[in-house]
Amino acid sequence: MPEGQPEPVVLYVCTTCRAEGDGDGPRAGARLLASIEKALAETPVPGLRVEPVECLSVCKRPCTVAVAGADRWTYVYGDLDPEASAPTIIEGIRLYAGTADGLVPWRARPEAFRKGVIARIPPRASA
Amino acid sequence: MPEGQPEPVVLYVCTTCRAEGDGDGPRAGARLLASIEKALAETPVPGLRVEPVECLSVCKRPCTVAVAGADRWTYVYGDLDPEASAPTIIEGIRLYAGTADGLVPWRARPEAFRKGVIARIPPRASA
Repeated sequence: MPEGQPEPVVLYVCTTCRAEGDGDGPRAGARLLASIEKALAETPVPGLRVEPVECLSVCKRPCTVAVAGADRWTYVYGDLDPEASAPTIIEGIRLYAGTADGLVPWRARPEAFRKGVIARIPPRASA
Repeated sequence: MPEGQPEPVVLYVCTTCRAEGDGDGPRAGARLLASIEKALAETPVPGLRVEPVECLSVCKRPCTVAVAGADRWTYVYGDLDPEASAPTIIEGIRLYAGTADGLVPWRARPEAFRKGVIARIPPRASA
């Protein structure tokens, strides 16, 4: 890792999430992925990698994403609107990427992250 | 890692989970941790490390655990009974530890893991 480069952060986006009213077109999860990628093309987050995933097993609270990074807590979020939530997600990720351990103070988190948190998992200590 | 040794697996147990009826004594999460440690003392799982955690943010579905391992999917489970579920959890972990990627076939999973899955997160690819 070159000095001064941020540690890479991964945003997992569930592309199989369905929302009420999903028809034959792209599922809500795929639409969320597209809107995140579009927003990131306009305002990139340094060190962020976006990874589509087939099912994060949070099927009852679509749409769903997870964010992880080396030595950071992993967070899973649900109840995300496929069309409207991309800016909020990116803002939350930007705050997350700016920490060493992934712990963003509660009050600083976007409301959608405070209400939509599904779970968090500690960083895995080196064995 | 010495040859032939299994990759280490970590079981995170939320010790702050409260169950209905919890009084002034140890919380349901702490009781679950104790019952898991007792069961593992009798029948150890090779390569398993148990780590107490203060809050996995699954507060609406106590008790909660997560299981993770190098190059494996991470799983989060909830709705676990603090007194009765230790043998089931250990059986599920044993199956998980026996895989390379953490993916245990659906039908092979203990029922409590099928019904109680909260989320899963992919292994983080090396950047």
